[in-house]
Amino acid sequence: MNNNNSLDYKALFLGPNSENSNAFSEILNSLFQDHVYWRKNFHPEDPDVITSNVKNNENFKYTLEKMKSVFDDMSKRLRENATPWHSPRYLGHMNSETLVPGLLGYFGAMLYNLNNVAYESSEPTSVMEKEVGEDFCKLMEYPKGWGHICADGSIANYEAIWYARNLKSLPFAIEEVEPELVKGKSKWELLNMPIEDIINILELSNNKMDILKSHSARSLATEIQDLGVWLVPETKHYSWLKAADILGIGTHNLIPIKLDNHYRMNLTELKNTIDSYISKGTPILGLVAVVGTTEEGAVDYVDKILELKNQYAKNGINFYFHIDAAYGGYARSIFLDENYNFIDKNDLKNKFAENNIFYNKDLNWPSEDIYNAFKAMKYADSITIDPHKMGYIPYSAGGIVIKDKRMRDSISYFASYVFEKGVKVPALLGAFIMEGSKSGAAAASVWAAHRVLPLNVTGYGKLIGASIEGAYNLYDYISNKKYFTVNDKKVYVEPLTIPDFNMVDFVLNVEGNKDLNSLNKLNEDLYNLSSIFSPDIYSNGFVTSHTDFSMADYSDSPLDILQRLNVPKEEWDKVKNLTLLRACVLSPFLNDPEVFKEYIPKVESNIIRKLSLLVK
Amino acid sequence: MNNNNSLDYKALFLGPNSENSNAFSEILNSLFQDHVYWRKNFHPEDPDVITSNVKNNENFKYTLEKMKSVFDDMSKRLRENATPWHSPRYLGHMNSETLVPGLLGYFGAMLYNLNNVAYESSEPTSVMEKEVGEDFCKLMEYPKGWGHICADGSIANYEAIWYARNLKSLPFAIEEVEPELVKGKSKWELLNMPIEDIINILELSNNKMDILKSHSARSLATEIQDLGVWLVPETKHYSWLKAADILGIGTHNLIPIKLDNHYRMNLTELKNTIDSYISKGTPILGLVAVVGTTEEGAVDYVDKILELKNQYAKNGINFYFHIDAAYGGYARSIFLDENYNFIDKNDLKNKFAENNIFYNKDLNWPSEDIYNAFKAMKYADSITIDPHKMGYIPYSAGGIVIKDKRMRDSISYFASYVFEKGVKVPALLGAFIMEGSKSGAAAASVWAAHRVLPLNVTGYGKLIGASIEGAYNLYDYISNKKYFTVNDKKVYVEPLTIPDFNMVDFVLNVEGNKDLNSLNKLNEDLYNLSSIFSPDIYSNGFVTSHTDFSMADYSDSPLDILQRLNVPKEEWDKVKNLTLLRACVLSPFLNDPEVFKEYIPKVESNIIRKLSLLVK
Repeated sequence: MNNNNSLDYKALFLGPNSENSNAFSEILNSLFQDHVYWRKNFHPEDPDVITSNVKNNENFKYTLEKMKSVFDDMSKRLRENATPWHSPRYLGHMNSETLVPGLLGYFGAMLYNLNNVAYESSEPTSVMEKEVGEDFCKLMEYPKGWGHICADGSIANYEAIWYARNLKSLPFAIEEVEPELVKGKSKWELLNMPIEDIINILELSNNKMDILKSHSARSLATEIQDLGVWLVPETKHYSWLKAADILGIGTHNLIPIKLDNHYRMNLTELKNTIDSYISKGTPILGLVAVVGTTEEGAVDYVDKILELKNQYAKNGINFYFHIDAAYGGYARSIFLDENYNFIDKNDLKNKFAENNIFYNKDLNWPSEDIYNAFKAMKYADSITIDPHKMGYIPYSAGGIVIKDKRMRDSISYFASYVFEKGVKVPALLGAFIMEGSKSGAAAASVWAAHRVLPLNVTGYGKLIGASIEGAYNLYDYISNKKYFTVNDKKVYVEPLTIPDFNMVDFVLNVEGNKDLNSLNKLNEDLYNLSSIFSPDIYSNGFVTSHTDFSMADYSDSPLDILQRLNVPKEEWDKVKNLTLLRACVLSPFLNDPEVFKEYIPKVESNIIRKLSLLVK
Repeated sequence: MNNNNSLDYKALFLGPNSENSNAFSEILNSLFQDHVYWRKNFHPEDPDVITSNVKNNENFKYTLEKMKSVFDDMSKRLRENATPWHSPRYLGHMNSETLVPGLLGYFGAMLYNLNNVAYESSEPTSVMEKEVGEDFCKLMEYPKGWGHICADGSIANYEAIWYARNLKSLPFAIEEVEPELVKGKSKWELLNMPIEDIINILELSNNKMDILKSHSARSLATEIQDLGVWLVPETKHYSWLKAADILGIGTHNLIPIKLDNHYRMNLTELKNTIDSYISKGTPILGLVAVVGTTEEGAVDYVDKILELKNQYAKNGINFYFHIDAAYGGYARSIFLDENYNFIDKNDLKNKFAENNIFYNKDLNWPSEDIYNAFKAMKYADSITIDPHKMGYIPYSAGGIVIKDKRMRDSISYFASYVFEKGVKVPALLGAFIMEGSKSGAAAASVWAAHRVLPLNVTGYGKLIGASIEGAYNLYDYISNKKYFTVNDKKVYVEPLTIPDFNMVDFVLNVEGNKDLNSLNKLNEDLYNLSSIFSPDIYSNGFVTSHTDFSMADYSDSPLDILQRLNVPKEEWDKVKNLTLLRACVLSPFLNDPEVFKEYIPKVESNIIRKLSLLVK
C-alpha cells in the first residue's frame, strides 16, 4: 500500500458470481460479534435473562424451529422471484447490485436500531447523517447548505414544494406582522420576492419568527392559492403530480413544459410559458429542472435555465428553483477533483485519464451541454439526490440538499419530548423534515459508502464513469447493429437518443412495418419475454424494462424516433403511444471491454431467440 | 414438538446478554449463503467478473482494507454512543431490542434489494407486503380493508389527512360533473356527506372517476379551504401539526381538544368544540383519536367518541374518523383469539391464562374503558400502526390500514413505467401511497415477524402482555415506594396516572418543596444523569427519557399530579411547565418477577446514587 493507491470499486461489490463472498462474510460476522460483545459488556455483572433453563424448554425450541422455517420460506420466495440485478444480463430498471459498504453499513447499524429523528436516540448515526449532509453540500458546492437522508426521492420532492410554498407565502405574513420590512411593495412584488431576500427577512425577524410563520401558508390554507404555478418538464416523475396534490397547490397548478429532441426541457417553450402566466398576472411559484429523467436519463439545460431565471429576476420576476436529480445527482462527483472543486473543462480529459474513469480514452462524454448543466447545479435553491439510485445504496435512502440552511426555518417544528434542551446537537432532524422516525441504519449505510468512495473523481466518480461507459458501449452496439436477422426478416433496432447519462432506450421494428400498434406490440411482447414475469428466470438470458411515451405526457417528442423507424406521423396521431425498451446501465462492469464482449453476445442471442418466437 | 406447543418470545430476541447469539448467527449466515449461491446459479455458465487477477491487484487490496477500516470506525462509533435499548436497565423511549425475525428478515431481503413501489421490481416482497396488509386488516377487523407499510407513523398520519381531504372535497366535484347524483343537496349537506356515501358514488362513477378527481381538492387548491377543521386531542403527536401544514389545510385548522385526568380526550370538550364549529357553519373535516399517546401511553375513549359521532350523523353531521395507533395499534392483538375474533369481555381472563399472557393472574388490565376502546377501533375510517414501535421491528417501518379499500381511488396516481399492464398484481403500491420507492426488506422484516408471531393472543399478544405487565410492575413499585431517602431527605416519587398501556411517567419532588422550577430542575437534572449523554454509559446503571407538559399544549391537565406533589396551582400558573420522567416499558422481560427483582433494585440504587448528587 502506498499513497499512489487508487480505489478499485470491484472490491466493493459482492459480485455477479458472489466473487467477494469471503470478504463480505468476514466483515458481516465481525460487525455482528462486535455487537454481541457490546451487549455482554454493558454491565457485565447482569445475569442472563434467557437462561439455559429457558432454552431447554419445549416451547422455546418449538419457537426457534418455527422461526427457522419462516426464514426458509422467505429465502425460497426471494430466490424464486427476485430480480437478478446482480447480473450484467440485467439491463432494465435503475438497479444493479448495491455496494457492500451500503449493505453492511445498514446491517451493522440496524443491530443498534437508532432513530435519527431524535439525536438523543441516535447519537452515532445522527452524526453520520450530518456528515452525509455535508458530503451532499460538497458535491453540490453549497458552502452554506444543509442536507439529509429521507425515505425516497418523492418525499424529497414534496419537501422542495414545502420549502417553496412556505417561503413564497412569507412576504404576505411579513406585510401583516412587520409591514415596514416590505413597505411600498405591491402584491405582485410580494409574490415575486427573491428567495434569498425572504430568508434574510425571516432571519432578521428572529424573535417574531413564530408569529410570521403563523401568518404563512403553513397555518392558513387560504395563503396557498395565489402563489401561482409550478413548472416541470414533460419528462417529470409522477411524484410531482402527487406533490402538487399533497402539498395543497393542486395538480392544475402543475404545468408541464414541452421537450426538445434530446428529451430536455425546451427553453423556448419554457420562456413562452412563463411569459404567458406573467401576462395573465399569475406568478411562478417554482420551476423544476431534471438531471437524469427516469425514462430517458435526460439532463435539462440547467445553465441556460438559470440564465433565463436571471433575466426574469432583472424584471422583478422571481421564483423557486429546484433540481430533481434523484437519479443523476451522484453523477456530479465525476466533475469534482479531490478537493471538491469543479474541474475545468480543459482539464477534464486529463483528470479522467489520471483516475482511470474510462477504458476508452476517447469516449465522447460529457457533451458541452451536459458539462454546463452539471456545473450550474450549485445555483439551485434545492436538489433531490437519491443514494438508493446512483449511490448504489440499498433501499430506502433518498435525500435532499438545500443551498441555504436558513431555509429550514420556514418548515421547522419542535416537539419538546424529542428535542432535548441544552445539548450540542448536529441537527434536530425531526424538526426540519417530513418523517417522524427514521432509520439510523440508512444513514450508516450511506455514510459507510461515502467514507470509502468520496463524492469526487477519485471515488464515486469512477463508479459513475463505469456506468456511463457501459451505457455508451451499449448505445454504440445498438447503433452499429442496426438490425437483427430473425427468421429471415430484418428487425431494426433504433436508440431513442445518444445518452445524456447512463440510460439507453431503444425500439424494435420489423422491416417494412409502418403500423404503430404492431410496433408497440412487438416491443411489449419482447419485454414480456424479457421481464421478471417471463417463465423460468434461470433460462432467461436477458432481462429488461420498458416504458410508454403517450401523447398526453410527451406531446410530439416521439416523432423523431418514429421517423427513423419509418412510422408515419399519421400513425402517431392515431395511436398516441409509443412503447420502448429501457436499459439503465447501472452494472459497474459493462465498461470493461472484456466483460462487455463476454455478456453482450449472450444478450444478443437471447434477444434473437425471443424475437424468433414473435416474428414469423 | 406437538400441537400443544405455544410460542416463547424469548427465543425471538438476541437477548440482553446476547444469549441467543448462536441461533442468530446460524440463520444470518444461512440467509447470506442462500443469496451467494443464488447469484452463482443464475446462469452458472457466466464467467467471474471479479477474477483472482483483479483480486491480486494492489488497488483492490487497498480498497478492501480501506473498507474494513471504515467499518472498524463505524463499529467503534456505534459501541461508544449507541443507546443500550437491549438492557432491562433502559426505561425510556419506546425502544427495546428488536425481534430477530425483524432484523434477519430485513437483512435477508436487503441482499436482493427489491423496491416495493413497483411489483415488477419486487415480486417476493410485494407479496409479503400484501400479506402484512392483510394481517393489519385482520388485526383491526377490517374485512374490506387494505393496509401497507410506509416510512413511519408521520407519513401514515399525512396519508390519513390526504384521504380525508380528497374524499371530503369530492361531493363538490360530483356536483359539478354529475350533478344528478347529489341533486338537491345544500352546500352544508355536501360538506357533511358520510365517507361511505362518497366512496359509493366514486365507485358508481367509475368511468368518470378521473374527471371527478380533477375537480376535487387534489387538483384545485381552492377546494381545500372550506372543508373545515381537523380535531385532535391535546396529547397529539407533533406530526399532526406538520400534517396540517403539508397537506395544505393549515395549522390554524388543527384544533386541539382538552383532556381529562387520564390524559384522554375529554368527551364534553369534544362535544362542545364540535357544536361551536357547527354553530358557526364550519364543518368538521375529521377527528383523530389516539390509542397510545407518545407521552403518556393514554388510550382515548374510541367507543364513546364513536357514539358521539353516530349521534351527529343522525343530524346530518359527518366527518372522517382516524385513529392514531402508531404506538398502541399492535396491542389490539391481545384481544383477538386464534381465529382473530375479538374476545368477549367475560372470556378475556381465561384466554389470558390459557396463553400465559400475565405472570400475575390478577393483573387488573384492561380496564373497561380500555377494553371498549380497543373493541371499537374497527369502526374508524383508517388507523396508523407502526411496526417499528410495538411491533418490535427495526426502523423504518410505519404503517396505515384503511377500512374500505375503495378509498384508495381518491388518492391514486398511475405512472405508466412503474405499473405494468396485464399482470396480476397484489397492489400497485406506488399508485396509492406517498413514497415513490420503498424498501422490500422492510416488508420482509415485518412479514417474518408476523409469520412467527400471529397478530393475536397466541402471538404478538404475549409480547404485548409482557410489556404491559412490566409497566404495571414498575407502576406498582413506584406507587408503593412513595419516596426515596437521599442524604436524609425524602424525595417523593409520584406516577402520572395508572397506565392505560405500557408507559409509566413519574415525577420526583423533595419533601416540602413547593417551587415548580426547583421540581422541574430536579427531574431535568436526574434525566441528565440518566440519559445517553451522561458521562460513562458503562457505569450508568439506569437510562431513561423525559418530557415536558406545557400549559400551551396541556391546558391545566397537570394540576392533578401537581396537587399530589403538593405544588400549588399558583406555581403552575406562573411556571406553565412540568418536567416528567418517562419510562416506556418495552422490555419483554420485566414481566418476569425474577427478572424484575433482579433489575429494579439496581435501577433504584442508581436513582438514589444520582439523587444524592442533586439533593444536598
